[in-house]
Amino acid sequence: MDTDSRNSTVDLLLINGMVLTLDSENRRFDSGAVAIRGEEIVAVGPSPELTARFRAGKTLDVQGCAIMPGLVNGHTHAAMTLFRGLADDLPLMEWLRDYIFPAEEKLTEEMVYRGTQLACAEMILSGTTTFCDMYLFEHKVAEAAKQAGMRALVGEVLYDFPSPHYGSVQNGLKFTESLIEQWRGDPLVRIAVEPHATYTCSPQLLQQCRDLAARHRVPLIIHLSENQTEVDEILKRHGCRPVAYLEKLGLLGPNLIADHCVALDENDMELLARRDVQVIHNPESNMKLASGIAPIPRLLEMGVNVALGTDGCASNNDLDLFGEMDTCAKLHKVATLDPTVLPASTVLRMAVKNGAHALGLGDRIGAIAPGKWADLIVVDLQKPHLTPLYEPLSHLVYAARGSDVRHSIIHGRLVMEDRQLLTLDIGEVMKQARRLSRRKDPC
Amino acid sequence: MDTDSRNSTVDLLLINGMVLTLDSENRRFDSGAVAIRGEEIVAVGPSPELTARFRAGKTLDVQGCAIMPGLVNGHTHAAMTLFRGLADDLPLMEWLRDYIFPAEEKLTEEMVYRGTQLACAEMILSGTTTFCDMYLFEHKVAEAAKQAGMRALVGEVLYDFPSPHYGSVQNGLKFTESLIEQWRGDPLVRIAVEPHATYTCSPQLLQQCRDLAARHRVPLIIHLSENQTEVDEILKRHGCRPVAYLEKLGLLGPNLIADHCVALDENDMELLARRDVQVIHNPESNMKLASGIAPIPRLLEMGVNVALGTDGCASNNDLDLFGEMDTCAKLHKVATLDPTVLPASTVLRMAVKNGAHALGLGDRIGAIAPGKWADLIVVDLQKPHLTPLYEPLSHLVYAARGSDVRHSIIHGRLVMEDRQLLTLDIGEVMKQARRLSRRKDPC
Repeated sequence: MDTDSRNSTVDLLLINGMVLTLDSENRRFDSGAVAIRGEEIVAVGPSPELTARFRAGKTLDVQGCAIMPGLVNGHTHAAMTLFRGLADDLPLMEWLRDYIFPAEEKLTEEMVYRGTQLACAEMILSGTTTFCDMYLFEHKVAEAAKQAGMRALVGEVLYDFPSPHYGSVQNGLKFTESLIEQWRGDPLVRIAVEPHATYTCSPQLLQQCRDLAARHRVPLIIHLSENQTEVDEILKRHGCRPVAYLEKLGLLGPNLIADHCVALDENDMELLARRDVQVIHNPESNMKLASGIAPIPRLLEMGVNVALGTDGCASNNDLDLFGEMDTCAKLHKVATLDPTVLPASTVLRMAVKNGAHALGLGDRIGAIAPGKWADLIVVDLQKPHLTPLYEPLSHLVYAARGSDVRHSIIHGRLVMEDRQLLTLDIGEVMKQARRLSRRKDPC
Repeated sequence: MDTDSRNSTVDLLLINGMVLTLDSENRRFDSGAVAIRGEEIVAVGPSPELTARFRAGKTLDVQGCAIMPGLVNGHTHAAMTLFRGLADDLPLMEWLRDYIFPAEEKLTEEMVYRGTQLACAEMILSGTTTFCDMYLFEHKVAEAAKQAGMRALVGEVLYDFPSPHYGSVQNGLKFTESLIEQWRGDPLVRIAVEPHATYTCSPQLLQQCRDLAARHRVPLIIHLSENQTEVDEILKRHGCRPVAYLEKLGLLGPNLIADHCVALDENDMELLARRDVQVIHNPESNMKLASGIAPIPRLLEMGVNVALGTDGCASNNDLDLFGEMDTCAKLHKVATLDPTVLPASTVLRMAVKNGAHALGLGDRIGAIAPGKWADLIVVDLQKPHLTPLYEPLSHLVYAARGSDVRHSIIHGRLVMEDRQLLTLDIGEVMKQARRLSRRKDPC
């Protein structure tokens, strides 16, 4: 239980909580404790045992709360918080053409920076400790995440047409490479290569992305088979479905993070499983945009690693993974007319362990165990809507909301205590977001 | 704008809020105010105007907040908060047979009273001001609702088999009648006649219920066409589908509140529309129990009044109508593959005005207008996940959660101020619920 018993001093000790380790044995400690030194968890176990063993720089008594690994948001566009509720309930093409694309054409570094700060605030406040981002001006996403103390995998979106950030796609590839160099070895922020989608990237670009990711051993991220329109378009252009198309181009593999994967046939699913592709499921966005229902129970059955994401705030419209877990668990039950699919334990694993694995962090985060990085959250179970308590996993998926998260620790650092953000000036962050949204012509 | 300008003194004045009246013209006052005298709204309008006109016993400055009518939970089993998370993710019959029915066999008056108190706390904390209940020992539901200051339409569930409360169904009918007499004229609590469902009630019982409701001019409430199994069963027993069966028995009419209405064919829908039946949609429960997706866009198109409910906590597992609105808006988009169906404004209307109308309270609540009873909530929009703000209706449906509700007023009485419950001792309520859930054998 302990990687280092020579030294009995730790930086942070959480005591008297219900520890849900989500480790390989799913161990629980009903009155449990977690000891953290530097960025690492050094011990987890019964509270009396750890309080006897360790002297701590800071101790948090979390009686009545669950201590669990932080949630992993496998797919978002953080800065799109600025477009939250700008336009809803529209046909997809009208929404994109008349609202989202015009807004993004006028995107600036500052907007991405401020929008990401707002997203980090919202994510920390709702229990997310790691997120995976795709957008423009991603150096500002990296900067904002780092300042907020959040763990992030980020990358500049790449497509055939000129970007309001980097101009030509060749500049985009160079920019991505410079980001990789710049952030190499950073404990919090890592960089991915991120071609937008099969229908917005030439085969050459997709292969350049594949090679760049391979050369630097970084993840490759793409929107894939988000809806039937995309499938029809790729069938028309290339004579095969998007998944088979990526297989042909040599992009399918364990380092590929495929967002959405809604419109899949059996052959697509077999390819994803065989190539060990990481799938990110975004149920609320898929519902709101009427993209369809991804065949998640079947993918899990085939052994695919499926994690959870919120997608951006323009199509959700929040970043609360607790709400996403609830919707995920319920959506697939009604879609299959089987109330036993995606039980709470599976959905929680998707939002934690599978997310960590998808982002290439499976050995460092996703469970509370000695030697892991200390990314964890404390959820207050002493609320009317979480009372009484028979089974904490049920409450975490079906009844808890982001607002029940009380403390958050990322990489050993307390980033929220008693719902007060310690790394962000939330008044200023909201003020700046409001200012940017009030520009004469937000779209 | 004012029903009474003779007297410039009011009891409560809400100022500087964004008033969303949801009245027939959908009027909004960006810096608006609402004046309340006794149980009634006496004026709504621009804040400077009302502050000049009225002296108030108490003034609440709600800058940065929305003031809107309270939400109406059209269908729940309040006391089932005690069974929240007791068992999930099971086949329906196993869930009922091994967990819910055994738990309910041991139900006591005290459990219903304490469970309803917990439900009232959760509902007030999440913006619900009125609820419609069906369960056992409903005199205790009435009592708990009245003490909590909540508006409620309640009724004892009636079925052919002996009830752990009243014994034979004839006693149940008598008990219902005594409840009607007892609560007649109460401003908060009203009584309905509540046969459980077509498959648990004999035709004789259904007709007795119909007659009892007609005699006392009270609503009649039933679970109807919740899933295909029910339809198959009634087809087998009576040679017609549940809706047609109720038509044959003379139960369909504007005073019938039909919960669920998931498994409907075109003929069912036409009957519901023609008879002006009130339909309560419970999307999260229908999803979790894998009952199916109710054809809500079609029902609305046909002119049926459809309201929203959460169902009980055993199948949801919370009573948060903000989450329910979000899920409702998204579910029907993906079910129809049309992102324009059930826009935010429609879903909000379902949870407010349609709910009021369904419960027979359409002339008294469901909008902020002079002469209406003062049932309203104040939602804090100054939150990271509600920033920036382009369109409040979008945030209320797609991003807000129950925890964003700051104040609640029911029948002119402040029942929650700054998230502090004023009618319930929440510590005691949670303590009692925990005690009852820890009985040796909760099921």
